[in-house]
Amino acid sequence: MKSHTTYMTFETERRRELVRITEEVQAAVEAAGIAEGMALVCAMHITAGVWVNDDEPGLHEDVLEWLDKLAPPSWSEPANDVARELVPNPGDYRHHAGGEDNGDAHLKNLLVHHQAIVPVTDGRLDLGPWQQVFYCEFDGRRRKRLVIKVIGE
Amino acid sequence: MKSHTTYMTFETERRRELVRITEEVQAAVEAAGIAEGMALVCAMHITAGVWVNDDEPGLHEDVLEWLDKLAPPSWSEPANDVARELVPNPGDYRHHAGGEDNGDAHLKNLLVHHQAIVPVTDGRLDLGPWQQVFYCEFDGRRRKRLVIKVIGE
Amino acid sequence: MKSHTTYMTFETERRRELVRITEEVQAAVEAAGIAEGMALVCAMHITAGVWVNDDEPGLHEDVLEWLDKLAPPSWSEPANDVARELVPNPGDYRHHAGGEDNGDAHLKNLLVHHQAIVPVTDGRLDLGPWQQVFYCEFDGRRRKRLVIKVIGE
Repeated sequence: MKSHTTYMTFETERRRELVRITEEVQAAVEAAGIAEGMALVCAMHITAGVWVNDDEPGLHEDVLEWLDKLAPPSWSEPANDVARELVPNPGDYRHHAGGEDNGDAHLKNLLVHHQAIVPVTDGRLDLGPWQQVFYCEFDGRRRKRLVIKVIGE
Repeated sequence: MKSHTTYMTFETERRRELVRITEEVQAAVEAAGIAEGMALVCAMHITAGVWVNDDEPGLHEDVLEWLDKLAPPSWSEPANDVARELVPNPGDYRHHAGGEDNGDAHLKNLLVHHQAIVPVTDGRLDLGPWQQVFYCEFDGRRRKRLVIKVIGE
Repeated sequence: MKSHTTYMTFETERRRELVRITEEVQAAVEAAGIAEGMALVCAMHITAGVWVNDDEPGLHEDVLEWLDKLAPPSWSEPANDVARELVPNPGDYRHHAGGEDNGDAHLKNLLVHHQAIVPVTDGRLDLGPWQQVFYCEFDGRRRKRLVIKVIGE
């Protein structure tokens, strides 16, 4: 059995962003030198996801809007710091009690998952014609990591 | 390490349909000739899923109804083609701007995922007593593919 | 290729409970004696999940509350057995027609998934600094099982 590990680092400009990484996963398979096996792709953070879906911009906007409906952000700031101290955001996440504002990103991570695993056949990612692998940032604008682990022969 | 790949094709009668495939996944494990390893089962489309759950008809109806609540369909057609051109469906998915009507199927695919991976022990799928593997079609009535990749020894 | 299988049993006090199992998964990797590979962690039930997320109590409460919004429980009992027989809970899950009351636990299982797969590098779970593996019970107070399958070399 052969194995190979690749790490990627992301620092997105926007808080939420989808980054296509199919090509990087394929490159990791080639670096592993395997013909048959699997490529496991995992965000190493609890506020980012990995999924396999269409590379269609309208869909990407739909998905980000829809995820906000299912796991609403609650990082909207009160008008000023005093208000913030006096009136904690009603309905806010408990997770924010420690000063964080990314509770929704954790929920989105749970919904769409932090990982996908792609079968490898004849040295190629065995994906359908419209399937692309994406890194899905839900709390970006800082350095985040991802690991690709390829095993096979 | 041994490996084996099986492709399955589905053409469901209904737009949405759950198809039990536990037996086919077990057959792929036997074709691989492994005792220990894993069987990765992936829909090759972005509008279908794979899950492991109960084979109980009431639950299946519940799940399809519930998925429509979380990811509502918006493929309801206006009365005629002219109306369709003049009045795009309000609140419709951006993904439908290109003429498609399966935006909700993409979201359902993201929610329930396009894949599951089953441990193999002593040559058998190592599932609990109520666990069955299902192919979950969200945009059927046309040919769709699935890949089963077994690795192990 | 080496492989190793570990089974765990849970019997939680509460109906819903999150149990951190990172250390047990790491122990299974050590029992397997591998340096490179993958550890697959699967609930063997259709009413429990496995996820990788933060070990932060506020977040855990947030997640359980949020899952109740997305997949509402409907196990509230009518006032007495006669009422139960005469007036089935309106809006209840079809799955409950057979006498069960855990329909929502099935839906939660589908949402958060029954499994996660952790890459192994240099004999260690290759997780980010805040990532912990959890067993997520949605219908506890009885014995439930989980399987950890490690493969690698």
